[in-house]
Amino acid sequence: MNMYEIITKTKHGQKLTNEEIKWLVDGYVSGEIPDYQVSAWLMAVNLMSLSDEETLCLTMAMKDSGETVDLSTIKNVTVDKHSTGGVGDKTSVIIGPIVASCGVSVPKMSGKGLGHTGGTIDKLESIPGCSTRAEFSDFIRYVNDTGFSIVSQSGNLVPADKKLYALRDATATVDSIPLIASSIMSKKLAMGADCILLDVKTGSGAFMKNEDDAEKLASLMVRTGQNAGKKCMAVITDMDIPLGRAIGNQLEIIEAVEVLKNNVRGNLYDICIELAADMLMMAGKGAKDECVKLSEEAISSGKALEVFRRSVSQQGGDTGFIDNYGVLGGAKKEYAVYSTSEGYISKMNSEDIGLASLELGAGRRTKESEIDYTAGIVLEKEYGDYVKKGDKLAVLYTSTADSFVLAEKKVLDAVVITEEKPPARKCVIKVIE
Amino acid sequence: MNMYEIITKTKHGQKLTNEEIKWLVDGYVSGEIPDYQVSAWLMAVNLMSLSDEETLCLTMAMKDSGETVDLSTIKNVTVDKHSTGGVGDKTSVIIGPIVASCGVSVPKMSGKGLGHTGGTIDKLESIPGCSTRAEFSDFIRYVNDTGFSIVSQSGNLVPADKKLYALRDATATVDSIPLIASSIMSKKLAMGADCILLDVKTGSGAFMKNEDDAEKLASLMVRTGQNAGKKCMAVITDMDIPLGRAIGNQLEIIEAVEVLKNNVRGNLYDICIELAADMLMMAGKGAKDECVKLSEEAISSGKALEVFRRSVSQQGGDTGFIDNYGVLGGAKKEYAVYSTSEGYISKMNSEDIGLASLELGAGRRTKESEIDYTAGIVLEKEYGDYVKKGDKLAVLYTSTADSFVLAEKKVLDAVVITEEKPPARKCVIKVIE
Repeated sequence: MNMYEIITKTKHGQKLTNEEIKWLVDGYVSGEIPDYQVSAWLMAVNLMSLSDEETLCLTMAMKDSGETVDLSTIKNVTVDKHSTGGVGDKTSVIIGPIVASCGVSVPKMSGKGLGHTGGTIDKLESIPGCSTRAEFSDFIRYVNDTGFSIVSQSGNLVPADKKLYALRDATATVDSIPLIASSIMSKKLAMGADCILLDVKTGSGAFMKNEDDAEKLASLMVRTGQNAGKKCMAVITDMDIPLGRAIGNQLEIIEAVEVLKNNVRGNLYDICIELAADMLMMAGKGAKDECVKLSEEAISSGKALEVFRRSVSQQGGDTGFIDNYGVLGGAKKEYAVYSTSEGYISKMNSEDIGLASLELGAGRRTKESEIDYTAGIVLEKEYGDYVKKGDKLAVLYTSTADSFVLAEKKVLDAVVITEEKPPARKCVIKVIE
Repeated sequence: MNMYEIITKTKHGQKLTNEEIKWLVDGYVSGEIPDYQVSAWLMAVNLMSLSDEETLCLTMAMKDSGETVDLSTIKNVTVDKHSTGGVGDKTSVIIGPIVASCGVSVPKMSGKGLGHTGGTIDKLESIPGCSTRAEFSDFIRYVNDTGFSIVSQSGNLVPADKKLYALRDATATVDSIPLIASSIMSKKLAMGADCILLDVKTGSGAFMKNEDDAEKLASLMVRTGQNAGKKCMAVITDMDIPLGRAIGNQLEIIEAVEVLKNNVRGNLYDICIELAADMLMMAGKGAKDECVKLSEEAISSGKALEVFRRSVSQQGGDTGFIDNYGVLGGAKKEYAVYSTSEGYISKMNSEDIGLASLELGAGRRTKESEIDYTAGIVLEKEYGDYVKKGDKLAVLYTSTADSFVLAEKKVLDAVVITEEKPPARKCVIKVIE
């Protein structure tokens, strides 16, 4: 086998064999195949795509390039969830406790987010004392104790993805559906859960801007997961508008707690119930409607909040903030943004809202950036609301940014006000099983 | 400017600016832009192509990446010719003397051929004593004395092409028409002749297997040359069958001399007259029919042979072989290939003939390979001939190969014999001005 032939085949739309793909991945990880050949291949994949079978082979070869997680000492059925990332997406922190309180384990390993608003790890670490670094044996113990834990990825998990992703990031070859699918699925499979729920976001604040691409990606990942012997389904969800009202790490944790306290309704509550029910359904807890009921009860009974409280505590976090948000300290500065016109909010561009929160310090511009946990935005109005000129649209928070000028502009850019009331939105667009 | 954006633009079929292309070429030559980004870009170019304007910019940026040749001290109008390479293509050695004998200078710098049958440089160096390495001042003197000289490329001419070509060669990104055009034209423009004739070969033994691609490449190169302020035209010529009857370095030199002695007719003679006439026409020597006449007279009068003799002599070659081919020594071993059936030769696949000559030692498998100057093939029959079973088709020559088995097989594979007489072939398929 040689790389020249492999590049040529992909360039001409010919299928690679399982052996060729494995040889490529192993040779790249070991350093025998140089970056410049792999980047040419990645561009060929970007422009010519890969078949489903090739994507599965690539996923498995990537998964097998390093260590894999053994979850066999976890008592219950295990379910993992992956979100392709969005603005205000604090669902993991809510859904994990819901599912765990119903007797299904949610052992979750996450990477640090390089986005507008931080990742799940950042959200948890914004709780004073809460650490996501844990020995593997502690992680298993946490999950066996409370049913739920989120820790930082550690060990040599999927080194092929680390190396390939860095190369894709430098060569404009990130946005290929088979490459995204194999990157996500190789990690999910390496993490070893029995069932995998994929939340593929679509819309302005998502990586997949349009539904067609989201559906292609979702289908490909589901087929890949199922072919690899897992229970796997995907939900395509709306990320054209922010999820909930809070964007920014501590602000999102507070909103998550409010959901768990049963104080919140709207798209965030709805999506959490929906995704939690899907996870329970995959884990064999009954039909969808029964699992929806279980999820709602997990919140209304306070059981999910209790799991969250114990989970924060076992990872060293101060749970005092759950009953008194003042414990978090809050941002040093705040600034209200007011509507400049009257009418219905018919757009709330989540990408712009995300960029505004990045301006305030809530996310990372580079891998090295420090996050301001207190920074972010609380939306006072949402999609479909009627507003008058001068009504408060949002409050901006920061402890580190010098000015609110750019963030305010972004928020005002994000909000489109029209005379006509916009149609209602569905938070779940499609389910792919 | 950054390479990520440049890759992204090309990948999405958006046009690069002149500044971006220049920045890319300069940054790559200086080592600031890494191979892995350039190879991703090359693959994007391969699959998405470049516009004519981008190709011109790329060509000029490549040309300007190193030294350029100053031919201003050559007395006459200068004409350069480039062939995209074929099997049995010894035309440069014939056409140069024809054109020079009509008062137009042909200063030619060539690279070593990495092909089935060696390049023009190899053919000249197969003449005992003949050297193609020359100081630039000697090269100019040769051209001013005889009107014709072919030397090896020297100096830091178009370093961008050297570096890009090596990367293309390793990443399966050679066969892109804009990349081929910019590679050829950057070198031709750096070599500084007033007029450029491009001989774009098409057919089994050519790099461009089909006429459409050959025409695209030819048109693009002509437009690029003309945009750069040169007189430039292209001729698309047939390389589905070998050019002439001799393949292999010394064998081809002998055939060239035979043409110059006016002993040969057929596709080789025809194409030499045609191309020489085009070169004379570009140099202002009259209308096409007048230039054809001048070219024919250059051969029939012996003037072209005289230029060839003086040219070999001034480059240190022993001209004795011109009157006695025995001086060359010849191959140690020879082997005749006989027809296994009866009928008309309706195919004479030049790629197979080229591969057969490579088996015999006439070409290079790698840059480091040593050529056997005596090796090659003389075809005893040609396209359209009627042959009986047992008729001699070809004689194979080698001083270095261990066996004739593979070469014989290739020759027999190349020759297709049918009951029906095949149609006549035109050696010039199209002229692009």
